[in-house]
Amino acid sequence: MSLRELVVLGTASQVPTRQRNHNGYLLRWDGEGILFDPGEGTQRQMLMAGVAANDITRICLTHFHGDHCLGVPGVVQRLSLDGVRHRVFAHYPASGRQYFDRLRHACPFHEVAEIHEEPVDRDGPVAAGAFGVLEARRLDHTMEAFGYRLVEPDGRRMVPERLDAFGVTGPAVGELQRNGVLDVDGRTVRVEDVSVPRRGQRFAFVMDTRLCDAVHELAEGVDMLVIEATFLAEDTSLATEYGHMTAAQAGRVAQESGVRQLVLTHFSQRYDEPARFHAEAAEVFDGDIVVAEDLMRIPVPKRRP
Amino acid sequence: MSLRELVVLGTASQVPTRQRNHNGYLLRWDGEGILFDPGEGTQRQMLMAGVAANDITRICLTHFHGDHCLGVPGVVQRLSLDGVRHRVFAHYPASGRQYFDRLRHACPFHEVAEIHEEPVDRDGPVAAGAFGVLEARRLDHTMEAFGYRLVEPDGRRMVPERLDAFGVTGPAVGELQRNGVLDVDGRTVRVEDVSVPRRGQRFAFVMDTRLCDAVHELAEGVDMLVIEATFLAEDTSLATEYGHMTAAQAGRVAQESGVRQLVLTHFSQRYDEPARFHAEAAEVFDGDIVVAEDLMRIPVPKRRP
Repeated sequence: MSLRELVVLGTASQVPTRQRNHNGYLLRWDGEGILFDPGEGTQRQMLMAGVAANDITRICLTHFHGDHCLGVPGVVQRLSLDGVRHRVFAHYPASGRQYFDRLRHACPFHEVAEIHEEPVDRDGPVAAGAFGVLEARRLDHTMEAFGYRLVEPDGRRMVPERLDAFGVTGPAVGELQRNGVLDVDGRTVRVEDVSVPRRGQRFAFVMDTRLCDAVHELAEGVDMLVIEATFLAEDTSLATEYGHMTAAQAGRVAQESGVRQLVLTHFSQRYDEPARFHAEAAEVFDGDIVVAEDLMRIPVPKRRP
Repeated sequence: MSLRELVVLGTASQVPTRQRNHNGYLLRWDGEGILFDPGEGTQRQMLMAGVAANDITRICLTHFHGDHCLGVPGVVQRLSLDGVRHRVFAHYPASGRQYFDRLRHACPFHEVAEIHEEPVDRDGPVAAGAFGVLEARRLDHTMEAFGYRLVEPDGRRMVPERLDAFGVTGPAVGELQRNGVLDVDGRTVRVEDVSVPRRGQRFAFVMDTRLCDAVHELAEGVDMLVIEATFLAEDTSLATEYGHMTAAQAGRVAQESGVRQLVLTHFSQRYDEPARFHAEAAEVFDGDIVVAEDLMRIPVPKRRP
């Protein structure tokens, strides 16, 4: 079974509140579990959300401000305490390598789990696998920051009526998918004969940043865009000064980039009505909008029909 | 007004649970706020418990296992974010200086608050001030660990009836306390004439450790003993193997050391009935016993009459 969902572990910027822990997001993507920007307290939020250390296959940090990385020591130590046996990859801006080192070795523990660091120092692909390609783009924040984008390759969807018409049934369907061609009673069936193009799913994670070209590049055509909306439009000048975005800007990016679902998060504690973020983005974006709350599970939208 | 209380921020050993965050304890002692062993998530627990960064005057770490120190980065950064203007002292085992350095500088932040490190490398006094004397004793754990003990100097309690009899009233009372003698209508009144000895209050914080002499030395005659009771007596061999104590051992120490109030904490998540810790200690200790829960506020027992 393929399971693709975002588990929200925390949604506060800068300081936690009673309702919102510091950042933390686990993207479940079939067998992958990508932990983005674990802030302090992520270890306990994982417990609250039903996420096990063993679910994590990859850690991606956008940058090294505390609300995006101080959960790393707890997560790293928990991977070992729980005896996780698979290799866990870690991606972060290469300019912060010394900080990752401090976080990873913050205090003594019995190191069992294997963490393989692959720092990011340029735009482009970061990793590739059965999940597709993980890419990074440099953002525009007060320190070096990278956003991430996950792109599943386009494929083809089998059409049951055509399979029937060509007499392809049972294990032969898989064989045709793997080989591209199949001999059926002496006749060659090509995969194109029985299927239609299927667009791969796409996901993007964007924070912290001012509005810039990279935000659009990351967001282009994704099914789910998780993006910081620290401020409301009334505080656009503050957002720009501190290197952040507004809900209105996030909404415009989503609209211009053909995003299907917009997940707003990383809220300043100065606002006490989450509905305002939704309202502001909805003025410019006509797709699905979610104002993230801690411990939400948000399914990645089903494939386009 | 003198306010002396323990604010419990977290009570779990090793891993957090739904009910228990990792360790963290703020001792309010008149103008001092001593933060002991902040584990991951302490910053948010402070919010939940009504503790401000500005309340912290001193940070004391017993040792550098993650559940006792991974809250340091968040607390240190919060002191600066909130613009705390008083100097904050930090005490920790000197052998872990490199770890404190990593925790203190875990990632970039705008450093405003002044933290003054005074690492502990031997038994004896660590600091002295209006609060009394803060002492440390080396414990017996799987890594170097120190317990702490706060001793207020003994003083004298004024007896209103005697003050009346000697004609000492109003501001003259304070003058007599400060100077030790006072001239009243040509007659010399000594402070001993109008007061009785008053024992200073004492507090001890003991974790993580096997039962050893230092535990008794720290606990001797304290009004409040906060002590780890990771295990129950049925698991005494595990406790010894992992360098911990049982509730029964904590109770015996309290009884033998003339402790008034015993606060048990740092529980293994293997037990789901906190009442068992209470019952076990109560078999051997006839003073007040509190099984710590997160966000409890426990007043330091009033002075002995």
